[in-house]
Amino acid sequence: MKKAKKIINNPKNVVNELLEGIVEASNGKIRIIEGVSALVKKEIPDGKVGLLIGGGSGHEPLFPGFIGVNMADGAACGHIFAAPAPNIVFEATKAISKGNGLLYLYGNYAGDNMNFDIAVEMAEEEGIAVKTVRIWDDVASAPIERIEDRRGIAGDLFVIKIAGGISARSDDLEEVFRITARARDNTRSMGVSVSAGSIPETGEPTFLLPEDEIEIGMGLHGEPGVSREKMLDADPLVEKMMDKILSDLPFKEGDEICLLINDLGATTMMELLIVNRKVSQILRDKKIKIHDTVIGSYCTCQEMAGFSITLMKLDEELKKYYDMPAESLGFTKL
Amino acid sequence: MKKAKKIINNPKNVVNELLEGIVEASNGKIRIIEGVSALVKKEIPDGKVGLLIGGGSGHEPLFPGFIGVNMADGAACGHIFAAPAPNIVFEATKAISKGNGLLYLYGNYAGDNMNFDIAVEMAEEEGIAVKTVRIWDDVASAPIERIEDRRGIAGDLFVIKIAGGISARSDDLEEVFRITARARDNTRSMGVSVSAGSIPETGEPTFLLPEDEIEIGMGLHGEPGVSREKMLDADPLVEKMMDKILSDLPFKEGDEICLLINDLGATTMMELLIVNRKVSQILRDKKIKIHDTVIGSYCTCQEMAGFSITLMKLDEELKKYYDMPAESLGFTKL
Repeated sequence: MKKAKKIINNPKNVVNELLEGIVEASNGKIRIIEGVSALVKKEIPDGKVGLLIGGGSGHEPLFPGFIGVNMADGAACGHIFAAPAPNIVFEATKAISKGNGLLYLYGNYAGDNMNFDIAVEMAEEEGIAVKTVRIWDDVASAPIERIEDRRGIAGDLFVIKIAGGISARSDDLEEVFRITARARDNTRSMGVSVSAGSIPETGEPTFLLPEDEIEIGMGLHGEPGVSREKMLDADPLVEKMMDKILSDLPFKEGDEICLLINDLGATTMMELLIVNRKVSQILRDKKIKIHDTVIGSYCTCQEMAGFSITLMKLDEELKKYYDMPAESLGFTKL
Repeated sequence: MKKAKKIINNPKNVVNELLEGIVEASNGKIRIIEGVSALVKKEIPDGKVGLLIGGGSGHEPLFPGFIGVNMADGAACGHIFAAPAPNIVFEATKAISKGNGLLYLYGNYAGDNMNFDIAVEMAEEEGIAVKTVRIWDDVASAPIERIEDRRGIAGDLFVIKIAGGISARSDDLEEVFRITARARDNTRSMGVSVSAGSIPETGEPTFLLPEDEIEIGMGLHGEPGVSREKMLDADPLVEKMMDKILSDLPFKEGDEICLLINDLGATTMMELLIVNRKVSQILRDKKIKIHDTVIGSYCTCQEMAGFSITLMKLDEELKKYYDMPAESLGFTKL
C-alpha cells in the first residue's frame, strides 16, 4: 500500500502545530498551556464547573476543536492515537479550575482511563474536586453486559454538547455529572470502515483491509468490529448497522432522538447524505422522531474512509441542553 | 489506480438520493421539486428577493447543503460535475419567486453560465426579474486581466454567506446584486491537489498525479493549475500559495478579512490546522487582520486530497452581512 501524502511539516511536530492552528482560528479566545499539549479558554467565569475533554490526537476536530461557547473549557491532547500524559491533564485542570470542580469527559480507552485517573488524584491533592464520565457508545466493541468495556467513538460529540450546555448553566458538579452521564447512557453508535487512515509519522496504514471488503463495527484505530464482509450497497449496509444500534438501548416507537452521521475521514458528504436518507427512512418506519440531524466530519481517524451512525435518545432535560446554541471550531449550533 | 469503494446504491441515483438525504436532515424545512433535481425552502416570505445557487453535484456540501436560515433559498443541481439543465434552474426559480425577483449565484463555468443564462430568459418570459453573480475566486485559473475567465471554487461559501444575509434583509434586487457582486470582487482563493477524487459512476480517478507530486492551483475537477511540483512541506507550500493570493487583489496592511481553509475531500482536519497556523502567521506579519476563520469541508471534489485557501476582504457593509447568524446543513454561524 502506498504511503499517504500528508500536508505537514516535521511529523514530530504535528500535534503542537495543529493546536497552534486552533489557537490562531480562535480569534484570541483559546490559548495553549505553556509546555504541554493542552488548550484552554482564555476566559472562564469564576465558579464555573470546568469541562475538560481530551484523548489521543489524530481524530480532529475531536477533541480540541470542541472548545468554545457552551462547549468544553479545555482539551488535554496526547500524541497521535495516544492518551494524554497525566501532567497534561493536570496542567489543564489547574488552568480551568474556578472553585467548583471539573468534569473529565473522554472516550473509554485503557490509556485514557489510567492517565485521567492519575490526574484526578493529582487534582484532589490540590483540593480540586473532579468527577469523570467515560464515553462508551460503540455497540460493536463489547456486549451490553460489558458496556463498561465499550469504546468511545463519535457519540463523543453529543455527550460533549450536553455537558457543555449543563456546565454553562449549573455550578453544581454533581448535577453536571448526573446529566452528562445520562447523555452518555442514552447514546449508541456503530461505525463501518472501508479503507484505512495512516499514521502521520510513518505514512503507514493503521490496518489492512482487502480491496473488496469492509469491516462493520471497526474501531477508530482499526480495532476489530463485528463482521468483515464483501462491499455492500449503502442501503443494506445501513440496515445491518441500524439493527444493531436500535436493538441495543433499545430505541422504541415514540422515542425522540438526535442523529449524527459522522465521516471517519475520507468519506464524501455525498455518501453521508445517501446514508442519512436510509437511516431517516428506517427511523420513520419505526416511528422514532428525529429532533435534529448532524452530518459531517466530527470524529475522524486521519483519512480513514467509512462512517458511523450515532443516536442519542432525548428526554426533556437533555433536549433543553442540546438545544442551547454552541460555537466551536468543529461544531456550531444556532 | 484502484477503483474507489464508495458507500452508495445504484451509481445512477446518487444525485437524487443525496438530495433526499438533505431533505431528511432538514426537519421539514426543505423540499425537493417534483421531477427535477432541485431543493427549495418550504417557506419563503412574500416579497423576499430569492437566492438561487447551484451547479454540478459531487462537491457537497456545496451547493444544496447551503440552503437555510440567512443562506440560500434553493439550489439547482446537475449530475456529478455537470451543470444543471435550464429547466431545473427554471423550476427552482418559479418555486422561489415571491414577487421581487431572484439572484442567481454560481461558479463561473461554461456549462453553468450557458444553462443559467437560458433560465434567465425563461424566467423573464414569466415576468420574473433575475440578476446574476458568477463567482470567479480562483486566482490560479486565469490572469487578473481576464478575471472573468476564472473558475469559482471555495470562495463560493463566503459569497453565498453575504448574499444570504443581504437577501434576507433587503427586498431590492439591485442592492442584493450590488453587495453580492462586491463580496465576489473582494474574494480570492487558491487550491492545491495532492491526489485525485473519483467519479461515482465509474470509480475512475478524475486525473492522474505522480505519487511524489502535487499540483498548485489545480481546479476542482482536475483542471490544470499554475505548477506541478515535488511534494512540499506545509509551510513552504502555504508561502507559495499566499504569495499568489495576497498579490492578486492585492490584500494590504490594515485590511480586515475572513479566512477559509477548505478541505477538497480527504485532507484531514489535522493538516488543515497546520496550514491555518502558517496562513495566520503570514497574515499577522503582513498586518492583515483576521475577522473570522472557517476550517473544514465546504467545497469538495469527492475524495480528492488537497485544500484551498480563501480570503475575503471586508468593509463595514460586508462585515454586517457576514456577521449575521446563519444555519444550514453545511455551514452554521452563531
